[in-house]
Amino acid sequence: MSRRLKVAAAQMGPIHLADSKASAVKRMMTMLRQAADAGCRFVVFPELALTTFFPRWWMADQAEIDRFFEAQMPSPETMPLFELAREKKVGFYLGYAELTEDGGRTRRFNTSILVGPDGRIIGKYRKVHLPGHSDHLPQAPFQHLEKRYFEVGDLGFNVWRMFDEDVVMGQCICNDRRWPETFRVMGLQGVEMVALGYNTPTDNIYFHEPPYRRVFHHLLSVQANAYQNGTWIVATAKAGKEDGFGMYGASVIVAPTGEIAAQAMSEADEVIMFDCDLSLGESIRQNVFNFARHRRPEHYRLITERAGAEPPPPTRK
Amino acid sequence: MSRRLKVAAAQMGPIHLADSKASAVKRMMTMLRQAADAGCRFVVFPELALTTFFPRWWMADQAEIDRFFEAQMPSPETMPLFELAREKKVGFYLGYAELTEDGGRTRRFNTSILVGPDGRIIGKYRKVHLPGHSDHLPQAPFQHLEKRYFEVGDLGFNVWRMFDEDVVMGQCICNDRRWPETFRVMGLQGVEMVALGYNTPTDNIYFHEPPYRRVFHHLLSVQANAYQNGTWIVATAKAGKEDGFGMYGASVIVAPTGEIAAQAMSEADEVIMFDCDLSLGESIRQNVFNFARHRRPEHYRLITERAGAEPPPPTRK
Repeated sequence: MSRRLKVAAAQMGPIHLADSKASAVKRMMTMLRQAADAGCRFVVFPELALTTFFPRWWMADQAEIDRFFEAQMPSPETMPLFELAREKKVGFYLGYAELTEDGGRTRRFNTSILVGPDGRIIGKYRKVHLPGHSDHLPQAPFQHLEKRYFEVGDLGFNVWRMFDEDVVMGQCICNDRRWPETFRVMGLQGVEMVALGYNTPTDNIYFHEPPYRRVFHHLLSVQANAYQNGTWIVATAKAGKEDGFGMYGASVIVAPTGEIAAQAMSEADEVIMFDCDLSLGESIRQNVFNFARHRRPEHYRLITERAGAEPPPPTRK
Repeated sequence: MSRRLKVAAAQMGPIHLADSKASAVKRMMTMLRQAADAGCRFVVFPELALTTFFPRWWMADQAEIDRFFEAQMPSPETMPLFELAREKKVGFYLGYAELTEDGGRTRRFNTSILVGPDGRIIGKYRKVHLPGHSDHLPQAPFQHLEKRYFEVGDLGFNVWRMFDEDVVMGQCICNDRRWPETFRVMGLQGVEMVALGYNTPTDNIYFHEPPYRRVFHHLLSVQANAYQNGTWIVATAKAGKEDGFGMYGASVIVAPTGEIAAQAMSEADEVIMFDCDLSLGESIRQNVFNFARHRRPEHYRLITERAGAEPPPPTRK
């Protein structure tokens, strides 16, 4: 059986407030067709790929907020994407805002799914590391209200066998990619490829940070997490200026060596592809990052015992 | 009180088998004097800084092995370094092979110490992530016998307040720098600067890997671990060809942004310095890596429950 998987990151340019979900799906279908025609078997779309990045807007009316959510998946608007993928025998990753009823309680998550080449949803993930804030910051140039509009994900970091069970696939979303914990939990399940979508503002609303440094942090995190777990990572942005608010692109396909195999060059709809050798990660996972030989969990206990940092108190002064 | 600390990485060129410990100490004293005269208050020397990187040699005779170890610290050979540091009011980090008697049992560790500007040893670390192997690999161009000559460290990853208790300082050694666990455990103790020494062969004895990629992995790991914990890292190599066996240099002082503030340009004795703004990490630790706000230890349990990777079994095929 082949240990290669040709994949695509289907970066999306801006989706404005006025744009319909159907128009976003149409753009995704164009890119999926392009990827399939080039021989790709897996396409990664962005986080919250059906609408504008709505957490930048303060909204008090729950009905207004819920317009950005999906109560079922496939939804009427996304069904054509599922059908095209099944026709083309291409699997995909899709991020969307999930609204679900759970024991009489309405819950909302920032969610992604893995869809097999047969069109079946085979795995769901709900974002754990929600960035931003839950209160209104009227003095900020824009909001980042993920902590208001979503609950913290309750499904953990899992992996799934895809493509005739040949590939151990993981998934996460946006800010999760900065956290080594995200990838180590998947690494400990033998992950070989991680799909992730993101929407990251070009500017930091909390403190001044030059935009080049923010792109550097994105790349540094994804590259290090790939290397330190010997896994491929396919990281796909929604990018460009949505109603005037900039988000950087820099979608990348990163090898298990931590090297960038392909990188988007625009902030628009753009498909990048790479024919990934899945055995490339094995030499890393069997040597420098042979976890069983080298890891010492008895010295890692603080990682799970403590959420926040606790510096030692000064003993004098 | 100043929140700046000017520091030096005192990279060492080769120490050959025939070189004495006293000659290595003399070279360190020359560099410490250079750093002190330039206003540095802290100097980081390499791992196993007193001798050649002896784990590359297979030795069966324990007395021959123990010549590379120190049964006390300061030892007669290192005492002049401690005295000079006290005179110059400079703290330092030093790596050495430690031999200790513990309840009638002789134990050996790959050890580093933090020494205050008053010449007192204030912290000890024993290397946790020992790379390499314990058996003889006669077909390899050289050995990497850390798993034979040392026990796994038993002290964990700690931090200490240094410099009038103003700086939360951590330490680790060589291969530890590749592991996000190392830095997260220190980050959860509010670390602001990590000192680390290393000896890393230019060639991989396990599988083919171009040397440029090995230096990239070193930099990627140190830069990502700095950023993901908002800490300064001072990483100091022993470099160059020891009796013909190459080790890369690339000693670096890395900022809490993950950016390289200073980098050595040789594989010889070379002092690099940087005047570190300790407040630079605070904006990172209070925002994107505000652990208390964003970390979710309930989803990290595998990190401490499991040492090795366990892929999900295939359900069919």
